[in-house]
Amino acid sequence: MSDNRAIGIFDSGLGGLTVAKEIVKLLPEENIVYFGDTGRVPYGTRSHDTIKKYAAQDERFLLSKDVKIIVAACGTVSSVAGENEKSLPVPFVEVVSHSVRAAVKATKNKKIGVLATPATIKSGSHKRQILEIMPDAVVVENSANLLVPLVEAGWIDEKDSVVLETVRRYLEPMKEQGVDTLILGCTHFPVLAPVISKVLGEGVTLINMGASTAYAVKELLEKNDALNDGCKAPEKLFFVSDKTQTFKETAAVLLGEREELIIEQVDINRV
Amino acid sequence: MSDNRAIGIFDSGLGGLTVAKEIVKLLPEENIVYFGDTGRVPYGTRSHDTIKKYAAQDERFLLSKDVKIIVAACGTVSSVAGENEKSLPVPFVEVVSHSVRAAVKATKNKKIGVLATPATIKSGSHKRQILEIMPDAVVVENSANLLVPLVEAGWIDEKDSVVLETVRRYLEPMKEQGVDTLILGCTHFPVLAPVISKVLGEGVTLINMGASTAYAVKELLEKNDALNDGCKAPEKLFFVSDKTQTFKETAAVLLGEREELIIEQVDINRV
Repeated sequence: MSDNRAIGIFDSGLGGLTVAKEIVKLLPEENIVYFGDTGRVPYGTRSHDTIKKYAAQDERFLLSKDVKIIVAACGTVSSVAGENEKSLPVPFVEVVSHSVRAAVKATKNKKIGVLATPATIKSGSHKRQILEIMPDAVVVENSANLLVPLVEAGWIDEKDSVVLETVRRYLEPMKEQGVDTLILGCTHFPVLAPVISKVLGEGVTLINMGASTAYAVKELLEKNDALNDGCKAPEKLFFVSDKTQTFKETAAVLLGEREELIIEQVDINRV
Repeated sequence: MSDNRAIGIFDSGLGGLTVAKEIVKLLPEENIVYFGDTGRVPYGTRSHDTIKKYAAQDERFLLSKDVKIIVAACGTVSSVAGENEKSLPVPFVEVVSHSVRAAVKATKNKKIGVLATPATIKSGSHKRQILEIMPDAVVVENSANLLVPLVEAGWIDEKDSVVLETVRRYLEPMKEQGVDTLILGCTHFPVLAPVISKVLGEGVTLINMGASTAYAVKELLEKNDALNDGCKAPEKLFFVSDKTQTFKETAAVLLGEREELIIEQVDINRV
Protein backbone atom coordinates (compact mmCIF):
# COMPACT_ATOMS: atom_id res chain seq x y z
CA MET A 1 0.00 0.00 0.00
CA SER A 2 1.14 3.52 -0.61
CA ASP A 3 -0.17 7.06 -0.54
CA ASN A 4 1.25 9.56 -3.01
CA ARG A 5 -0.35 12.64 -1.51
CA ALA A 6 2.07 15.22 -0.16
CA ILE A 7 3.37 15.78 3.35
CA GLY A 8 2.03 19.17 4.50
CA ILE A 9 4.38 21.29 6.60
CA PHE A 10 3.76 24.75 8.02
CA ASP A 11 5.49 27.38 10.11
CA SER A 12 5.18 31.08 10.94
CA GLY A 13 7.96 31.81 8.47
CA LEU A 14 11.09 30.13 7.22
CA GLY A 15 12.18 28.41 10.44
CA GLY A 16 10.08 25.38 9.53
CA LEU A 17 12.31 24.82 6.53
CA THR A 18 14.88 23.39 8.94
CA VAL A 19 12.30 20.66 9.63
CA ALA A 20 11.35 20.32 5.95
CA LYS A 21 15.02 19.78 5.14
CA GLU A 22 15.28 16.86 7.58
CA ILE A 23 12.08 15.32 6.23
CA VAL A 24 13.33 15.61 2.64
CA LYS A 25 16.65 14.04 3.66
CA LEU A 26 14.98 11.10 5.38
CA LEU A 27 12.09 10.66 2.92
CA PRO A 28 13.45 11.83 -0.45
CA GLU A 29 10.62 10.27 -2.45
CA GLU A 30 7.83 12.22 -0.75
CA ASN A 31 5.95 15.17 -2.25
CA ILE A 32 6.05 18.25 -0.04
CA VAL A 33 3.66 21.19 0.40
CA TYR A 34 5.15 23.88 2.62
CA PHE A 35 3.35 26.94 3.92
CA GLY A 36 5.23 29.82 5.61
CA ASP A 37 3.06 32.56 7.15
CA THR A 38 5.51 35.32 6.16
CA GLY A 39 2.70 37.90 6.23
CA ARG A 40 2.28 37.41 10.00
CA VAL A 41 5.65 36.10 11.26
CA PRO A 42 6.66 35.98 14.13
CA TYR A 43 4.16 33.91 16.14
CA GLY A 44 6.19 33.48 19.34
CA THR A 45 5.51 36.96 20.75
CA ARG A 46 1.74 36.84 20.18
CA SER A 47 -1.04 35.69 22.50
CA HIS A 48 -2.10 32.05 22.71
CA ASP A 49 -5.53 32.84 21.21
CA THR A 50 -4.02 34.50 18.17
CA ILE A 51 -1.51 31.67 17.67
CA LYS A 52 -4.36 29.12 17.76
CA LYS A 53 -6.36 31.10 15.22
CA TYR A 54 -3.41 31.47 12.86
CA ALA A 55 -2.50 27.78 13.17
CA ALA A 56 -6.06 26.70 12.36
CA GLN A 57 -5.98 28.84 9.19
CA ASP A 58 -2.60 27.38 8.19
CA GLU A 59 -3.89 23.83 8.67
CA ARG A 60 -7.02 24.59 6.64
CA PHE A 61 -4.80 25.79 3.80
CA LEU A 62 -2.71 22.61 3.83
CA LEU A 63 -5.87 20.48 3.85
CA SER A 64 -7.04 22.36 0.74
CA LYS A 65 -3.89 20.98 -0.94
CA ASP A 66 -4.96 17.40 -0.14
CA VAL A 67 -2.05 16.46 2.13
CA LYS A 68 -1.87 13.08 3.87
CA ILE A 69 -0.28 14.37 7.08
CA ILE A 70 0.24 17.78 8.68
CA VAL A 71 3.49 18.72 10.38
CA ALA A 72 3.45 21.81 12.61
CA ALA A 73 7.10 22.69 12.02
CA CYS A 74 6.93 25.42 14.63
CA GLY A 75 7.73 25.16 18.33
CA THR A 76 5.23 27.86 19.21
CA VAL A 77 2.30 26.27 17.35
CA SER A 78 3.21 22.81 18.70
CA SER A 79 3.23 24.13 22.27
CA VAL A 80 0.18 26.36 22.15
CA ALA A 81 -2.16 24.91 19.55
CA GLY A 82 -1.62 21.18 20.04
CA GLU A 83 -5.35 20.68 20.65
CA ASN A 84 -6.14 21.70 17.09
CA GLU A 85 -4.95 18.27 15.98
CA LYS A 86 -7.98 16.50 17.42
CA SER A 87 -10.31 17.91 14.81
CA LEU A 88 -8.03 17.29 11.83
CA PRO A 89 -9.02 14.63 9.28
CA VAL A 90 -5.36 13.60 8.75
CA PRO A 91 -2.58 12.64 11.20
CA PHE A 92 -0.85 15.55 12.89
CA VAL A 93 2.81 15.67 13.94
CA GLU A 94 4.19 18.40 16.16
CA VAL A 95 7.78 19.10 17.10
CA VAL A 96 7.81 19.18 20.90
CA SER A 97 7.21 15.60 22.07
CA HIS A 98 9.83 13.98 19.82
CA SER A 99 12.50 16.49 20.80
CA VAL A 100 11.66 15.99 24.48
CA ARG A 101 12.21 12.24 24.13
CA ALA A 102 15.51 12.85 22.32
CA ALA A 103 16.65 15.22 25.08
CA VAL A 104 15.77 12.83 27.90
CA LYS A 105 17.71 10.11 26.08
CA ALA A 106 20.73 12.38 25.57
CA THR A 107 21.17 13.90 29.03
CA LYS A 108 23.66 12.37 31.48
CA ASN A 109 23.37 14.85 34.36
CA LYS A 110 19.57 15.23 34.05
CA LYS A 111 19.88 18.97 33.52
CA ILE A 112 18.04 19.95 30.35
CA GLY A 113 17.78 23.46 28.92
CA VAL A 114 14.92 24.75 26.77
CA LEU A 115 15.43 27.82 24.60
CA ALA A 116 12.21 28.93 22.90
CA THR A 117 9.87 31.82 22.13
CA PRO A 118 7.93 33.62 24.90
CA ALA A 119 4.63 31.93 23.93
CA THR A 120 6.26 28.47 24.03
CA ILE A 121 7.88 29.03 27.42
CA LYS A 122 4.63 30.44 28.80
CA SER A 123 2.86 27.22 27.70
CA GLY A 124 5.30 25.13 29.73
CA SER A 125 5.00 22.33 27.16
CA HIS A 126 8.61 21.14 27.17
CA LYS A 127 9.03 21.25 30.95
CA ARG A 128 5.78 19.36 31.56
CA GLN A 129 6.65 16.63 29.07
CA ILE A 130 10.24 16.27 30.32
CA LEU A 131 9.09 15.87 33.93
CA GLU A 132 6.50 13.29 32.90
CA ILE A 133 9.26 11.04 31.55
CA MET A 134 12.05 12.06 33.94
CA PRO A 135 10.52 13.43 37.15
CA ASP A 136 13.90 14.21 38.75
CA ALA A 137 15.16 16.27 35.80
CA VAL A 138 16.15 19.90 36.29
CA VAL A 139 14.64 21.94 33.46
CA VAL A 140 16.15 25.36 32.80
CA GLU A 141 13.94 27.42 30.48
CA ASN A 142 14.45 30.80 28.87
CA SER A 143 12.38 32.72 26.35
CA ALA A 144 14.21 34.47 23.55
CA ASN A 145 12.08 36.96 21.66
CA LEU A 146 14.85 38.46 19.54
CA LEU A 147 16.33 35.32 17.99
CA VAL A 148 13.56 34.85 15.40
CA PRO A 149 13.97 38.43 14.06
CA LEU A 150 17.77 37.91 14.01
CA VAL A 151 17.44 34.74 11.91
CA GLU A 152 14.80 36.27 9.63
CA ALA A 153 17.17 39.23 9.10
CA GLY A 154 20.06 36.88 8.30
CA TRP A 155 22.15 37.94 11.31
CA ILE A 156 23.46 34.47 12.13
CA ASP A 157 27.25 34.65 11.85
CA GLU A 158 29.02 33.19 14.87
CA LYS A 159 31.70 35.88 14.55
CA ASP A 160 29.11 38.69 14.74
CA SER A 161 29.41 40.37 18.15
CA VAL A 162 25.71 41.33 18.29
CA VAL A 163 24.59 37.78 17.48
CA LEU A 164 27.06 36.28 19.95
CA GLU A 165 26.15 38.66 22.79
CA THR A 166 22.39 38.25 22.23
CA VAL A 167 22.66 34.46 22.26
CA ARG A 168 24.98 34.57 25.29
CA ARG A 169 22.44 36.62 27.24
CA TYR A 170 19.62 34.16 26.58
CA LEU A 171 21.84 31.18 27.48
CA GLU A 172 23.11 32.67 30.76
CA PRO A 173 20.76 30.61 33.02
CA MET A 174 21.60 27.38 31.15
CA LYS A 175 25.31 28.02 31.56
CA GLU A 176 24.91 28.81 35.24
CA GLN A 177 22.99 25.60 35.94
CA GLY A 178 25.33 23.46 33.85
CA VAL A 179 22.85 21.81 31.49
CA ASP A 180 24.40 19.07 29.33
CA THR A 181 21.52 19.05 26.80
CA LEU A 182 19.68 21.96 25.20
CA ILE A 183 16.43 21.71 23.27
CA LEU A 184 16.31 24.24 20.44
CA GLY A 185 12.60 24.78 21.05
CA CYS A 186 11.99 26.96 18.01
CA THR A 187 12.58 25.79 14.45
CA HIS A 188 14.45 29.00 13.64
CA PHE A 189 17.20 28.17 16.11
CA PRO A 190 19.12 25.34 14.35
CA VAL A 191 20.46 28.08 12.07
CA LEU A 192 22.13 29.54 15.17
CA ALA A 193 23.55 26.17 16.35
CA PRO A 194 27.20 27.18 15.70
CA VAL A 195 26.77 30.31 17.84
CA ILE A 196 24.95 28.39 20.56
CA SER A 197 27.67 25.72 20.65
CA LYS A 198 30.33 28.41 20.83
CA VAL A 199 28.61 29.92 23.89
CA LEU A 200 27.77 26.65 25.70
CA GLY A 201 30.84 24.66 24.66
CA GLU A 202 31.02 21.50 22.56
CA GLY A 203 30.14 19.25 25.52
CA VAL A 204 26.47 20.29 25.45
CA THR A 205 24.19 18.27 23.15
CA LEU A 206 21.86 20.41 21.03
CA ILE A 207 18.49 18.85 20.19
CA ASN A 208 17.32 19.93 16.76
CA MET A 209 13.57 19.37 16.59
CA GLY A 210 13.74 18.78 12.84
CA ALA A 211 15.70 15.54 12.98
CA SER A 212 13.59 13.91 15.68
CA THR A 213 10.37 15.06 13.99
CA ALA A 214 11.44 13.68 10.61
CA TYR A 215 11.85 10.23 12.20
CA ALA A 216 8.40 10.50 13.76
CA VAL A 217 6.89 11.36 10.37
CA LYS A 218 8.62 8.38 8.78
CA GLU A 219 7.45 6.00 11.50
CA LEU A 220 3.88 7.21 11.27
CA LEU A 221 3.73 6.89 7.47
CA GLU A 222 5.26 3.41 7.64
CA LYS A 223 2.78 2.34 10.31
CA ASN A 224 -0.12 3.63 8.19
CA ASP A 225 1.23 2.10 4.96
CA ALA A 226 1.20 5.62 3.57
CA LEU A 227 4.68 6.12 2.11
CA ASN A 228 5.01 7.40 -1.45
CA ASP A 229 5.52 4.60 -4.03
CA GLY A 230 8.46 6.50 -5.54
CA CYS A 231 7.36 5.97 -9.15
CA LYS A 232 7.34 9.67 -9.98
CA ALA A 233 9.90 12.37 -9.18
CA PRO A 234 8.80 14.17 -6.02
CA GLU A 235 7.26 17.63 -6.22
CA LYS A 236 7.99 20.39 -3.72
CA LEU A 237 5.54 23.25 -3.52
CA PHE A 238 6.17 26.33 -1.41
CA PHE A 239 3.46 28.78 -0.40
CA VAL A 240 3.79 31.99 1.59
CA SER A 241 1.33 34.62 2.79
CA ASP A 242 3.70 37.41 1.75
CA LYS A 243 6.39 37.51 -0.92
CA THR A 244 9.03 39.34 1.06
CA GLN A 245 12.26 40.44 -0.56
CA THR A 246 14.43 37.89 1.18
CA PHE A 247 12.27 34.77 1.50
CA LYS A 248 13.36 33.10 -1.72
CA GLU A 249 17.10 33.32 -1.16
CA THR A 250 16.95 32.47 2.53
CA ALA A 251 14.66 29.52 1.81
CA ALA A 252 17.09 28.16 -0.77
CA VAL A 253 19.99 28.47 1.66
CA LEU A 254 18.08 26.82 4.50
CA LEU A 255 16.93 23.95 2.34
CA GLY A 256 20.30 23.54 0.63
CA GLU A 257 18.47 23.38 -2.71
CA ARG A 258 20.41 24.22 -5.84
CA GLU A 259 17.56 24.59 -8.24
CA GLU A 260 15.31 27.67 -8.20
CA LEU A 261 12.40 27.30 -5.78
CA ILE A 262 8.89 27.97 -7.04
CA ILE A 263 7.07 29.98 -4.42
CA GLU A 264 3.42 31.03 -4.68
CA GLN A 265 1.60 33.61 -2.57
CA VAL A 266 -1.77 32.88 -0.95
CA ASP A 267 -4.26 35.01 0.98
CA ILE A 268 -4.43 33.02 4.20
CA ASN A 269 -7.63 34.77 5.32
CA ARG A 270 -9.49 33.66 2.19
CA VAL A 271 -8.65 29.95 2.32
CA MET B 1 -17.66 75.55 14.60
CA SER B 2 -16.32 72.43 16.17
CA ASP B 3 -16.23 68.69 15.62
CA ASN B 4 -16.18 66.43 18.66
CA ARG B 5 -15.49 63.20 16.80
CA ALA B 6 -12.18 61.52 17.64
CA ILE B 7 -8.81 61.70 15.93
CA GLY B 8 -8.09 58.22 14.54
CA ILE B 9 -4.47 57.04 14.75
CA PHE B 10 -3.04 53.71 13.64
CA ASP B 11 0.27 51.88 13.47
CA SER B 12 1.60 48.36 13.03
CA GLY B 13 2.16 48.14 16.79
CA LEU B 14 3.10 50.45 19.58
CA GLY B 15 5.48 52.76 17.70
CA GLY B 16 2.59 54.99 16.69
CA LEU B 17 2.04 55.81 20.35
CA THR B 18 5.04 58.13 20.08
CA VAL B 19 2.93 60.12 17.58
CA ALA B 20 -0.24 59.80 19.68
CA LYS B 21 1.67 61.21 22.63
CA GLU B 22 2.67 64.35 20.67
CA ILE B 23 -0.92 64.81 19.43
CA VAL B 24 -2.31 64.50 22.97
CA LYS B 25 0.30 67.00 24.21
CA LEU B 26 -0.57 69.54 21.52
CA LEU B 27 -4.34 68.92 21.43
CA PRO B 28 -5.27 67.81 24.97
CA GLU B 29 -9.01 68.34 24.45
CA GLU B 30 -9.33 65.89 21.56
CA ASN B 31 -10.82 62.42 21.75
CA ILE B 32 -8.46 59.72 20.48
CA VAL B 33 -9.07 56.32 18.89
CA TYR B 34 -5.83 54.36 18.50
CA PHE B 35 -5.41 51.07 16.66
CA GLY B 36 -2.20 49.01 16.91
CA ASP B 37 -1.96 45.96 14.64
CA THR B 38 -0.13 43.89 17.27
CA GLY B 39 -1.37 40.67 15.65
CA ARG B 40 0.67 41.41 12.50
CA VAL B 41 3.50 43.71 13.62
CA PRO B 42 6.08 44.40 12.11
CA TYR B 43 5.07 45.91 8.76
CA GLY B 44 8.46 47.20 7.62
CA THR B 45 9.86 43.85 6.51
CA ARG B 46 6.78 42.86 4.47
CA SER B 47 6.04 43.45 0.78
CA HIS B 48 4.42 46.68 -0.45
CA ASP B 49 1.25 44.83 -1.49
CA THR B 50 0.78 43.32 1.95
CA ILE B 51 1.43 46.66 3.67
CA LYS B 52 -1.21 48.35 1.48
CA LYS B 53 -3.73 45.64 2.27
CA TYR B 54 -3.10 45.83 6.02
CA ALA B 55 -3.26 49.66 6.00
CA ALA B 56 -6.60 49.64 4.17
CA GLN B 57 -8.03 47.28 6.82
CA ASP B 58 -6.70 49.48 9.63
CA GLU B 59 -8.27 52.58 8.05
CA ARG B 60 -11.59 50.79 7.60
CA PHE B 61 -11.57 49.95 11.30
CA LEU B 62 -10.94 53.57 12.32
CA LEU B 63 -13.73 54.74 10.01
CA SER B 64 -16.08 52.31 11.76
CA LYS B 65 -15.33 54.31 14.94
CA ASP B 66 -16.55 57.53 13.27
CA VAL B 67 -13.26 59.45 13.38
CA LYS B 68 -12.92 62.92 11.84
CA ILE B 69 -9.34 62.46 10.61
CA ILE B 70 -7.00 59.51 10.10
CA VAL B 71 -3.33 59.65 11.06
CA ALA B 72 -1.05 56.92 9.68
CA ALA B 73 1.37 57.00 12.62
CA CYS B 74 3.70 54.61 10.83
CA GLY B 75 6.61 55.47 8.55
CA THR B 76 6.16 52.30 6.53
CA VAL B 77 2.44 52.84 5.85
CA SER B 78 3.03 56.53 5.07
CA SER B 79 5.73 55.64 2.55
CA VAL B 80 4.11 52.68 0.89
CA ALA B 81 0.35 53.17 1.14
CA GLY B 82 0.05 56.94 0.74
CA GLU B 83 -2.29 56.45 -2.22
CA ASN B 84 -4.92 54.89 0.03
CA GLU B 85 -5.75 58.37 1.29
CA LYS B 86 -7.41 59.41 -1.95
CA SER B 87 -10.39 57.15 -1.40
CA LEU B 88 -10.90 58.04 2.27
CA PRO B 89 -14.01 60.05 3.28
CA VAL B 90 -12.04 61.98 5.96
CA PRO B 91 -8.74 63.91 5.83
CA PHE B 92 -5.60 61.78 6.01
CA VAL B 93 -2.31 62.76 7.62
CA GLU B 94 0.85 60.75 7.15
CA VAL B 95 4.19 61.16 8.88
CA VAL B 96 6.72 61.48 6.04
CA SER B 97 6.08 64.86 4.40
CA HIS B 98 6.02 66.90 7.62
CA SER B 99 9.21 65.32 8.91
CA VAL B 100 10.89 65.95 5.54
CA ARG B 101 10.06 69.65 5.78
CA ALA B 102 11.37 69.78 9.35
CA ALA B 103 14.62 68.10 8.27
CA VAL B 104 15.19 70.45 5.34
CA LYS B 105 14.64 73.39 7.68
CA ALA B 106 17.05 71.99 10.28
CA THR B 107 20.03 71.01 8.11
CA LYS B 108 22.99 73.39 7.77
CA ASN B 109 25.33 71.25 5.65
CA LYS B 110 22.54 69.83 3.45
CA LYS B 111 23.43 66.28 4.43
CA ILE B 112 20.33 64.50 5.71
CA GLY B 113 20.17 60.94 6.97
CA VAL B 114 17.10 58.70 6.85
CA LEU B 115 16.88 55.67 9.14
CA ALA B 116 13.78 53.57 8.43
CA THR B 117 12.41 50.09 7.77
CA PRO B 118 13.35 48.11 4.61
CA ALA B 119 9.93 48.74 3.01
CA THR B 120 10.19 52.49 3.64
CA ILE B 121 13.71 52.77 2.23
CA LYS B 122 12.69 50.67 -0.78
CA SER B 123 9.84 53.15 -1.45
CA GLY B 124 12.34 56.04 -1.60
CA SER B 125 9.67 58.36 -0.15
CA HIS B 126 11.90 60.49 2.08
CA LYS B 127 14.69 60.89 -0.48
CA ARG B 128 12.29 61.86 -3.25
CA GLN B 129 10.54 64.45 -1.10
CA ILE B 130 13.78 65.90 0.27
CA LEU B 131 15.22 66.35 -3.23
CA GLU B 132 12.01 68.01 -4.43
CA ILE B 133 12.46 70.78 -1.85
CA MET B 134 16.27 70.82 -1.70
CA PRO B 135 17.67 69.42 -4.97
CA ASP B 136 21.32 69.73 -3.90
CA ALA B 137 20.85 67.82 -0.64
CA VAL B 138 22.86 64.67 0.02
CA VAL B 139 20.50 62.00 1.36
CA VAL B 140 22.08 59.07 3.20
CA GLU B 141 19.56 56.26 3.72
CA ASN B 142 19.78 53.00 5.61
CA SER B 143 17.21 50.34 6.34
CA ALA B 144 17.14 48.87 9.83
CA ASN B 145 15.10 45.71 10.12
CA LEU B 146 16.08 44.80 13.68
CA LEU B 147 15.24 48.05 15.48
CA VAL B 148 11.47 47.47 15.56
CA PRO B 149 11.87 44.03 17.21
CA LEU B 150 14.39 45.55 19.66
CA VAL B 151 11.91 48.27 20.69
CA GLU B 152 8.97 45.86 20.85
CA ALA B 153 11.12 43.61 23.09
CA GLY B 154 11.99 46.56 25.33
CA TRP B 155 15.72 46.43 24.56
CA ILE B 156 16.24 50.20 24.43
CA ASP B 157 18.79 51.01 27.13
CA GLU B 158 21.62 53.19 25.86
CA LYS B 159 24.04 51.32 28.12
CA ASP B 160 23.10 47.95 26.58
CA SER B 161 25.99 46.78 24.39
CA VAL B 162 23.72 44.88 21.98
CA VAL B 163 21.43 47.88 21.49
CA LEU B 164 24.38 50.25 21.09
CA GLU B 165 26.25 48.03 18.61
CA THR B 166 23.10 47.33 16.54
CA VAL B 167 22.27 51.04 16.31
CA ARG B 168 25.93 51.88 15.55
CA ARG B 169 25.95 49.44 12.65
CA TYR B 170 22.86 50.95 11.04
CA LEU B 171 24.20 54.50 11.50
CA GLU B 172 27.64 53.75 10.02
CA PRO B 173 26.88 55.34 6.59
CA MET B 174 25.39 58.45 8.20
CA LYS B 175 28.48 58.89 10.37
CA GLU B 176 30.81 58.40 7.42
CA GLN B 177 29.03 61.02 5.33
CA GLY B 178 28.73 63.49 8.20
CA VAL B 179 24.99 64.14 8.19
CA ASP B 180 23.92 66.96 10.53
CA THR B 181 20.23 65.93 10.56
CA LEU B 182 18.68 62.49 10.85
CA ILE B 183 15.05 61.64 10.15
CA LEU B 184 13.80 58.90 12.47
CA GLY B 185 11.74 57.43 9.65
CA CYS B 186 9.90 54.87 11.76
CA THR B 187 7.67 55.78 14.69
CA HIS B 188 9.33 53.13 16.85
CA PHE B 189 12.68 54.93 16.71
CA PRO B 190 12.11 57.98 18.99
CA VAL B 191 12.33 55.48 21.85
CA LEU B 192 15.93 54.86 20.77
CA ALA B 193 16.79 58.58 20.47
CA PRO B 194 19.21 58.55 23.44
CA VAL B 195 21.17 55.66 21.87
CA ILE B 196 21.13 57.28 18.44
CA SER B 197 22.39 60.60 19.87
CA LYS B 198 25.10 58.75 21.73
CA VAL B 199 26.30 57.15 18.49
CA LEU B 200 26.01 60.23 16.24
CA GLY B 201 26.99 62.87 18.81
CA GLU B 202 24.86 65.71 20.18
CA GLY B 203 25.56 67.93 17.15
CA VAL B 204 23.19 65.94 14.93
CA THR B 205 19.52 67.02 14.95
CA LEU B 206 17.07 64.12 15.24
CA ILE B 207 13.72 64.63 13.51
CA ASN B 208 10.94 62.91 15.44
CA MET B 209 8.02 62.42 13.05
CA GLY B 210 5.53 62.64 15.92
CA ALA B 211 6.12 66.28 16.76
CA SER B 212 5.95 67.56 13.17
CA THR B 213 2.90 65.41 12.46
CA ALA B 214 1.06 66.67 15.55
CA TYR B 215 1.46 70.24 14.27
CA ALA B 216 0.12 69.20 10.87
CA VAL B 217 -2.94 67.62 12.51
CA LYS B 218 -3.57 70.79 14.54
CA GLU B 219 -3.24 73.02 11.47
CA LEU B 220 -5.61 70.88 9.45
CA LEU B 221 -8.27 70.74 12.16
CA GLU B 222 -8.03 74.50 12.67
CA LYS B 223 -8.33 75.13 8.95
CA ASN B 224 -11.40 72.90 8.77
CA ASP B 225 -12.99 74.39 11.93
CA ALA B 226 -12.96 70.86 13.28
CA LEU B 227 -11.34 71.17 16.72
CA ASN B 228 -13.10 69.67 19.73
CA ASP B 229 -15.18 72.21 21.70
CA GLY B 230 -13.58 71.03 24.94
CA CYS B 231 -16.88 70.88 26.88
CA LYS B 232 -16.43 67.25 27.87
CA ALA B 233 -13.36 65.45 29.23
CA PRO B 234 -11.58 63.76 26.33
CA GLU B 235 -11.84 60.00 25.85
CA LYS B 236 -8.93 57.83 24.74
CA LEU B 237 -9.75 54.44 23.28
CA PHE B 238 -7.08 51.87 22.44
CA PHE B 239 -7.66 48.89 20.18
CA VAL B 240 -5.24 46.12 19.23
CA SER B 241 -5.47 43.06 17.00
CA ASP B 242 -3.71 40.92 19.61
CA LYS B 243 -3.52 41.30 23.36
CA THR B 244 0.14 40.47 23.80
CA GLN B 245 1.64 40.14 27.26
CA THR B 246 3.61 43.35 27.10
CA PHE B 247 1.43 45.77 25.12
CA LYS B 248 -0.37 47.33 28.06
CA GLU B 249 2.69 48.18 30.13
CA THR B 250 4.76 49.36 27.19
CA ALA B 251 1.87 51.48 25.92
CA ALA B 252 1.51 53.17 29.29
CA VAL B 253 5.23 53.91 29.42
CA LEU B 254 5.30 55.26 25.86
CA LEU B 255 2.30 57.47 26.42
CA GLY B 256 3.42 58.60 29.86
CA GLU B 257 -0.10 57.91 31.14
CA ARG B 258 -0.55 57.34 34.85
CA GLU B 259 -4.04 55.93 34.82
CA GLU B 260 -4.75 52.39 33.63
CA LEU B 261 -5.29 52.20 29.86
CA ILE B 262 -8.41 50.49 28.58
CA ILE B 263 -7.41 48.31 25.65
CA GLU B 264 -9.86 46.30 23.57
CA GLN B 265 -9.06 43.54 21.08
CA VAL B 266 -10.58 43.49 17.58
CA ASP B 267 -10.49 40.98 14.73
CA ILE B 268 -9.04 43.17 12.01
CA ASN B 269 -10.10 40.76 9.26
CA ARG B 270 -13.76 40.98 10.27
CA VAL B 271 -14.10 44.77 10.28
